[in-house]
Amino acid sequence: MKAYEIQKTFGMDSLTRTERAEPEPQPYEVLIRLRAASLNFRDLLMLQGLYNPKQRLPLIPLSDGVGEVVSVGKEVTRVKVGERVAGIFAQKWISGAPTREKLTSTLGGPYDGMLAEYIALNEEGVVRVPDHLTDEEAATLPCAAVTAWNALISQGDLKAGDTVLIQGTGGVSLFALQFARMVGARVIATSSRDEKLARLAVLGVADGINYQTTPEWDKRVRELTGGAGVDHIVEVGGAGTLARSVRAISLGGKISVIGVLSGVTSEFNIIPLLMQSVRLQGILVGDRETFEAMNRAIALHRMRPVVDRVFPFAEARAAFDYLASGAHFGKICLRF
Amino acid sequence: MKAYEIQKTFGMDSLTRTERAEPEPQPYEVLIRLRAASLNFRDLLMLQGLYNPKQRLPLIPLSDGVGEVVSVGKEVTRVKVGERVAGIFAQKWISGAPTREKLTSTLGGPYDGMLAEYIALNEEGVVRVPDHLTDEEAATLPCAAVTAWNALISQGDLKAGDTVLIQGTGGVSLFALQFARMVGARVIATSSRDEKLARLAVLGVADGINYQTTPEWDKRVRELTGGAGVDHIVEVGGAGTLARSVRAISLGGKISVIGVLSGVTSEFNIIPLLMQSVRLQGILVGDRETFEAMNRAIALHRMRPVVDRVFPFAEARAAFDYLASGAHFGKICLRF
Amino acid sequence: MKAYEIQKTFGMDSLTRTERAEPEPQPYEVLIRLRAASLNFRDLLMLQGLYNPKQRLPLIPLSDGVGEVVSVGKEVTRVKVGERVAGIFAQKWISGAPTREKLTSTLGGPYDGMLAEYIALNEEGVVRVPDHLTDEEAATLPCAAVTAWNALISQGDLKAGDTVLIQGTGGVSLFALQFARMVGARVIATSSRDEKLARLAVLGVADGINYQTTPEWDKRVRELTGGAGVDHIVEVGGAGTLARSVRAISLGGKISVIGVLSGVTSEFNIIPLLMQSVRLQGILVGDRETFEAMNRAIALHRMRPVVDRVFPFAEARAAFDYLASGAHFGKICLRF
Amino acid sequence: MKAYEIQKTFGMDSLTRTERAEPEPQPYEVLIRLRAASLNFRDLLMLQGLYNPKQRLPLIPLSDGVGEVVSVGKEVTRVKVGERVAGIFAQKWISGAPTREKLTSTLGGPYDGMLAEYIALNEEGVVRVPDHLTDEEAATLPCAAVTAWNALISQGDLKAGDTVLIQGTGGVSLFALQFARMVGARVIATSSRDEKLARLAVLGVADGINYQTTPEWDKRVRELTGGAGVDHIVEVGGAGTLARSVRAISLGGKISVIGVLSGVTSEFNIIPLLMQSVRLQGILVGDRETFEAMNRAIALHRMRPVVDRVFPFAEARAAFDYLASGAHFGKICLRF
Repeated sequence: MKAYEIQKTFGMDSLTRTERAEPEPQPYEVLIRLRAASLNFRDLLMLQGLYNPKQRLPLIPLSDGVGEVVSVGKEVTRVKVGERVAGIFAQKWISGAPTREKLTSTLGGPYDGMLAEYIALNEEGVVRVPDHLTDEEAATLPCAAVTAWNALISQGDLKAGDTVLIQGTGGVSLFALQFARMVGARVIATSSRDEKLARLAVLGVADGINYQTTPEWDKRVRELTGGAGVDHIVEVGGAGTLARSVRAISLGGKISVIGVLSGVTSEFNIIPLLMQSVRLQGILVGDRETFEAMNRAIALHRMRPVVDRVFPFAEARAAFDYLASGAHFGKICLRF
Repeated sequence: MKAYEIQKTFGMDSLTRTERAEPEPQPYEVLIRLRAASLNFRDLLMLQGLYNPKQRLPLIPLSDGVGEVVSVGKEVTRVKVGERVAGIFAQKWISGAPTREKLTSTLGGPYDGMLAEYIALNEEGVVRVPDHLTDEEAATLPCAAVTAWNALISQGDLKAGDTVLIQGTGGVSLFALQFARMVGARVIATSSRDEKLARLAVLGVADGINYQTTPEWDKRVRELTGGAGVDHIVEVGGAGTLARSVRAISLGGKISVIGVLSGVTSEFNIIPLLMQSVRLQGILVGDRETFEAMNRAIALHRMRPVVDRVFPFAEARAAFDYLASGAHFGKICLRF
Repeated sequence: MKAYEIQKTFGMDSLTRTERAEPEPQPYEVLIRLRAASLNFRDLLMLQGLYNPKQRLPLIPLSDGVGEVVSVGKEVTRVKVGERVAGIFAQKWISGAPTREKLTSTLGGPYDGMLAEYIALNEEGVVRVPDHLTDEEAATLPCAAVTAWNALISQGDLKAGDTVLIQGTGGVSLFALQFARMVGARVIATSSRDEKLARLAVLGVADGINYQTTPEWDKRVRELTGGAGVDHIVEVGGAGTLARSVRAISLGGKISVIGVLSGVTSEFNIIPLLMQSVRLQGILVGDRETFEAMNRAIALHRMRPVVDRVFPFAEARAAFDYLASGAHFGKICLRF
Repeated sequence: MKAYEIQKTFGMDSLTRTERAEPEPQPYEVLIRLRAASLNFRDLLMLQGLYNPKQRLPLIPLSDGVGEVVSVGKEVTRVKVGERVAGIFAQKWISGAPTREKLTSTLGGPYDGMLAEYIALNEEGVVRVPDHLTDEEAATLPCAAVTAWNALISQGDLKAGDTVLIQGTGGVSLFALQFARMVGARVIATSSRDEKLARLAVLGVADGINYQTTPEWDKRVRELTGGAGVDHIVEVGGAGTLARSVRAISLGGKISVIGVLSGVTSEFNIIPLLMQSVRLQGILVGDRETFEAMNRAIALHRMRPVVDRVFPFAEARAAFDYLASGAHFGKICLRF
């Protein structure tokens, strides 16, 4: 089958189109013909060797993918041939608290991922995706959407009437926006570009802040909330923005720390955190039951993920370059 | 001032128009000129002597009312003259778990209630109401809306994608419908009348069931949920419906038991409850902080309570009769 | 291998000693040589045909058993030969919320159970048991202990300083006593016999109530709690005692409904439940992660389950008869 | 009455013995003759002008104190003359989530505190203390004990079998140790002195680590927990230790950030926090209902706070010097 590998070394140029043997489903496995995939920032870090330099190569990259079940092992009972499924990010994290064992079973490293024609996964490691979604839309869900749901809904316990701050226009931020709106919260967003803020307004953002023209965006957040600050921040900027987030959060508010885009170390004064009774929660995608609960809500609301651009399988490298540019608004997908 | 009292005995005919001295606000009290009130089933039981036969008389009835602050005691800091406020049901239940002391401070018995021109309340016992509401709409909030919010949101932890069952078209049920929709849940409703079901559909009910023509409505609920049952039931029917509710609930589902409309004792088989891992939670309105959080959501969504009919102050008895008839769809209010 | 079966019909006399082929572990299974088992009330109901009359026969009874892993399938990674493990009650309930599928995978019906020399279970369906326990002690854990832990700790969120009421001296009640003490709660117990109350006092019960000599035990509970009632009741008596439990519970208290010993239907007035803001929660044993968390606590505290009596394998029928007599204090076990 | 004030400027030498008029209880106030007080690190920072340089002077310092109610205002119903009570730290934080208003009502700044013969407090701002405690012991509770309870029990939801790390031998750390033991958790402790570790062992610490001789104490913590790390850390060291705490915590573990003893800014790499799904929670003492729940547990267990040393009222300055030395093991008290 056709596949891409990170072959011998890491680096953008290591992404190599190759041939692999088509996998055979074991007794508890299902064989999926992949139809679409989506890219996450983790995939870029992995390709560049920044995520886990000890990752064994070759590796088929990408955590997110959707396809059709074309055959099943003889013991399989959860899934049927013909069903459209996505793989779950951590293949062994079905439910419950995360454990080391569960978290080392992730697709796109250490396990081979979705940038191939076929993948064989344990029947427990897949979920049916909502019918109203295109393949590309469905392929955006396993990492970014589950992360946003876990941050705001499962762990964040967001309530109607609460105010949420999202940062930028990446996949997690836009899913956070959509879910926050779905549960009746108000959303404030930051972005570096007014045209993106205009698009965010269309998606339901109540107030946008251009952090280029308003670098002290935390003060603007306080103004917009009558001085109180926001109840929840989905922090994707990492060290570069966290100090400001701590000043934009309400007393007793929650900051979900998702990823690290703008730097890896933070000179970060803990005092304001303490004084505000704030909760900082690291978020690690989520388990399969979270994914299934989220799908139920997406199906009910016929919610559509925001897909920025779809590349053909042959242009996977271009998709990575586009992700690296940071110009996207929503998810970047591949169609097979 | 003008007021109504339940004077010497209980009974529908005991409701008597009378004169009372206008209250003087104590140092920590605010004096409110009432502009609207609303009726709850508890008020009817109270009038009939069925709620608490030991209640001392005379009593000014009604728990729910809204008005303008016309003067404040010298120590008052939370409230200003001219603000529009509602009284909270349990005057001493500001936040935290309920206690005997907190719960014996309720308006409309044992404390005098809202069916009067003025009331003086401790500054802690009032909340500002959302600006976009009429006085009558705002007057519906203290009992019915707080109860529904407490059941579904505070205690029920309802999630987007969940399915909620409401029963009938009383105040609590309609607020539960509106809040469930606000947080992204699906709503199924029962009613005895098709025209009411049609109105419920307009308010966002996904599926209505006429329990006169479909007496085994629990089976229909199962059909509508793919056999799973609903995740949450706001049980207002009491003994008459609880046995069916237990058959309509999902594994691990929650039943909020609100009130008792159809009988006071239940021959109720506990086995199915056990087998389903169901949670049954008695709901006692809620505290002031719950009221305030709810108001924040109502204001954000510019949500309008469903007011069925507004009676003038002079026709309070007619309002009680109308409530007793059970014909209402939403709240019954009084305008002063 | 030697085994017992409920063979063609239900009834105490149906328990038949027989020979079965020794199971072969499948790729993901472990083969366990059983060394001890314990009996639960469910096993008795199952044998009598009262639990699930549609259960297919023959059935090897018993949910609880412990033994040594003697061989493992080729794909097994969680468990090693030589380890001492217990089976989990619901073989597919690893973690998360219960589902129909998870709950229909229980040992001792519908799946064959532990009253045999060997059993083959999926590697996910077993847990290592604390080293300091005898085989018989370890065999008491899967149903009764997990149920008590789930009721008080996982679902009940019991706090130090809370007061718990336990009923009688069955397995779940005594585990509830031990766990309540472990987390710093006070325990009140009811029993029909003073000598049992004396033994309960030794185990840490603060106050015992003989419900034969004090049939209005709910009033005594109120006296013992300064009028407040207890915070949590582990209700094992079912319909016969629930009405009193509702009168013995505190405002906002929790009743965990475990089983039904004294009757299957309850004429149960829902009003007091409502007025007290009480929560009634059906408890269905629990998942594997609950079992593992409990084991961690049992190991830390070197807690010993209360084993009333141990019967040899050959006297399984006598063990059932003894359970049916209700005379036990703690768990009834079998040694193989 | 006799009192101490921070008079015109901040600094250790500003603590001045003086005379103040004895307060008169207002209608809702109680007048307390103080019998004992205790010192917190916040009091030291306040005296030095490091806590809040904008604090108005003169100020009577100290948040923690206990005494006898000697008279009550005419509206007081919660408290009786002769009862022994402590003031609550934040006088307006009775229950519920913290708010700006609630948190700016704290004793020892901005409100006058306990270092005086008398104090008048609103009846809502006091709690009865457990009978078995001496006055000095009872005086240790309002800040340090409530903080530890809030961190581990209310917010931390500590379970039996969990492992907790405490740091040093200050008041919060020792209360955390005592509460962790009370609820069945295992405690690991760090200290700079072996003799203190020996005393900690007597109090129930399972494993002590001398961080002078084992500067990489996080590695030792991992060894002691089979590689897993601890479930909960009560972080009192602030910036100086937080980086190591993040390496000593388990996957999904919780760090309660209490105070800042070793520095005010942290160069703190957020990546490990993210990778471990860790929760960082700032803790702000707690509300009155938390205090009352804690007292119930302390009374049941007849738990004794660890009082290091008691100074007479006349030697308040010596008490502050002793606190500043960091040599204490438990709480430093004053007797009046």
